[in-house]
Amino acid sequence: MDITKAMEDHLNNLTKPRGSLGNLEKYCVKMAEIQKRVPPGVEKKGIYVFAGDHGVAAEGVSLYPQEVTRQMALNILAGGAGINALAAGCGWEITLVDAGVMGDEFPPDSGLPGGAGASSRSFRRERIRPGSGNCLREPAMSAGETGRALDRGKALAKDAADRGFDMIAIGDLGIGNTTTAAAMLAAAGFDASAVVDRGTGIDSAMLKQKRWVVEEAVKRAGVSPEGEAILRELGSPDFAMMAGLILGLEGRGIACVLDGFPVTSAAYMAFLINPKVTDWLFAGHLSKVAGHRPVLEKMGLEPIVDLNMRLGEGTGAVIGGHIVELGVRAAREMASFSSARVTDTGEGEEKY
Amino acid sequence: MDITKAMEDHLNNLTKPRGSLGNLEKYCVKMAEIQKRVPPGVEKKGIYVFAGDHGVAAEGVSLYPQEVTRQMALNILAGGAGINALAAGCGWEITLVDAGVMGDEFPPDSGLPGGAGASSRSFRRERIRPGSGNCLREPAMSAGETGRALDRGKALAKDAADRGFDMIAIGDLGIGNTTTAAAMLAAAGFDASAVVDRGTGIDSAMLKQKRWVVEEAVKRAGVSPEGEAILRELGSPDFAMMAGLILGLEGRGIACVLDGFPVTSAAYMAFLINPKVTDWLFAGHLSKVAGHRPVLEKMGLEPIVDLNMRLGEGTGAVIGGHIVELGVRAAREMASFSSARVTDTGEGEEKY
Repeated sequence: MDITKAMEDHLNNLTKPRGSLGNLEKYCVKMAEIQKRVPPGVEKKGIYVFAGDHGVAAEGVSLYPQEVTRQMALNILAGGAGINALAAGCGWEITLVDAGVMGDEFPPDSGLPGGAGASSRSFRRERIRPGSGNCLREPAMSAGETGRALDRGKALAKDAADRGFDMIAIGDLGIGNTTTAAAMLAAAGFDASAVVDRGTGIDSAMLKQKRWVVEEAVKRAGVSPEGEAILRELGSPDFAMMAGLILGLEGRGIACVLDGFPVTSAAYMAFLINPKVTDWLFAGHLSKVAGHRPVLEKMGLEPIVDLNMRLGEGTGAVIGGHIVELGVRAAREMASFSSARVTDTGEGEEKY
Repeated sequence: MDITKAMEDHLNNLTKPRGSLGNLEKYCVKMAEIQKRVPPGVEKKGIYVFAGDHGVAAEGVSLYPQEVTRQMALNILAGGAGINALAAGCGWEITLVDAGVMGDEFPPDSGLPGGAGASSRSFRRERIRPGSGNCLREPAMSAGETGRALDRGKALAKDAADRGFDMIAIGDLGIGNTTTAAAMLAAAGFDASAVVDRGTGIDSAMLKQKRWVVEEAVKRAGVSPEGEAILRELGSPDFAMMAGLILGLEGRGIACVLDGFPVTSAAYMAFLINPKVTDWLFAGHLSKVAGHRPVLEKMGLEPIVDLNMRLGEGTGAVIGGHIVELGVRAAREMASFSSARVTDTGEGEEKY
């Protein structure tokens, strides 16, 4: 019997009306397919937050100065960011990845206690280069750097397996990353106006500038819609590492929960390289960033929650992933009709 | 300075773009208003699951036989129900309330260890009468019983305060309770066809019967749209206790998260009695049961998640309530721009 059918049968024997756990049952079936076991399990969850700088930030596309990338990375390491609070509240270990932050190296004691969830916080130095090239004027990376970034991401997939994670989430942090993401997606065939966000704080002049930068960068790059080429010309080391991590999960039985617009754009590059990645991907949430929805739709992923969030750092992913975990818990911990001696009416789907 | 403004200022000083935690910030503001403190806190969460039988179940409106109410109550006490798994996964203590289950008393060792979250499970005997009257043919309760049920509910609000809960959720369990809920709402002025669920498992004949029962019961009762009268004629002890619990929370600084259609219908009766109840209510989720949405809308409550669930027992409430808690955690645990030395751009709302 195949896993899907076995998982559905398992769910149908639990003490609840058929299908009444709704989407949680769907998530559970997907987890069973990923882990190839019934019921699946979620023992250990890890979120990788990729921090990196983007050369295109020099083009006046963000309200925040570039040094905020580094400041926020330090804030995560100190336990004071949004992702720290939310990850602690949902049981995720945080790994902050320096995937190309500009400026000094992070101090060797990065990740020391303090703030929320101190015991489950760690740091990985994966800085191939500080920041990406300014994609409006030059390739974001060399071909060699792109390959290395993808490989570092794949190595993180092995790291996830070695650490026993059965579910990971991906978050991102970097001034200018929504511009990078929009440029990559425009190069991949999305309408630039659909993926450059109007937002609420960015004024019309800045929005116009951002759209112009995206369109000009895509023209300069002149790439075919192919994942690795787009990452090289318009991406960044952090985006390439995220894509590499997603690709590297193949065959590992580890589910991966995406955060918002930038992470999903990186996932789309992975999807262009290997369309099978959606088999192990969950869309943690629907971000308020306008371009997020069309990319998810193109990959056939339905967001788990929609809470009007647009913070990044993986804050939406940890919430969505936790809900998947709840479905798995229900499948593992609930009694069956026979074990609990509850009368089963068979095929019906009625509310108790 | 008022609490709302103080809470908003607090949120705006945290290391994130303004408003970027979306709905979580709204929930946080409401929690601050409920608790009258900035930031609010969620230290201890308790879910009360009300189990009760409904006389109208005799009219062929459910696929499940009435004894399933008792069986499922025992299942919750043994740790094997959906709510056990989900409550354990989100940190809620469960109190199963016997609010009028038919048949033998529950054994004195009800709530003993076993199953998920055993350590945080307890039992309350609040059985005023076994089951309600069949509202198609007679009043569901006497006036005295209705008053007593409301009082028992109010006593549970004191129980919640005594036990130190700063957030409670309400769940329900009882064969026939969606019929009872629909009848109450129809008597309160909702269109019967909008609140009697088609569902997916109930066939056309049974749906027709259910609608007929609801309409006839409302005719028989002939009550004005007044909460206590509707509860007496068309409700049940469990619905009255839920309404009493909600009413009894006034002034206690405890937030209350609603589950699906039946619980929300009980909340609507409380709302008819005191429209201020929405000040401390959250709608945990949007149930797949058709009548849920119009009742929430009438009370001005927006569901936190929509996961196509229709299990009951509080399974949607514990998920939604946990998300509110995450917002509160963020408000409490995140660093401020100044404490984390992160550059603040002031008014803008941009993605990092």
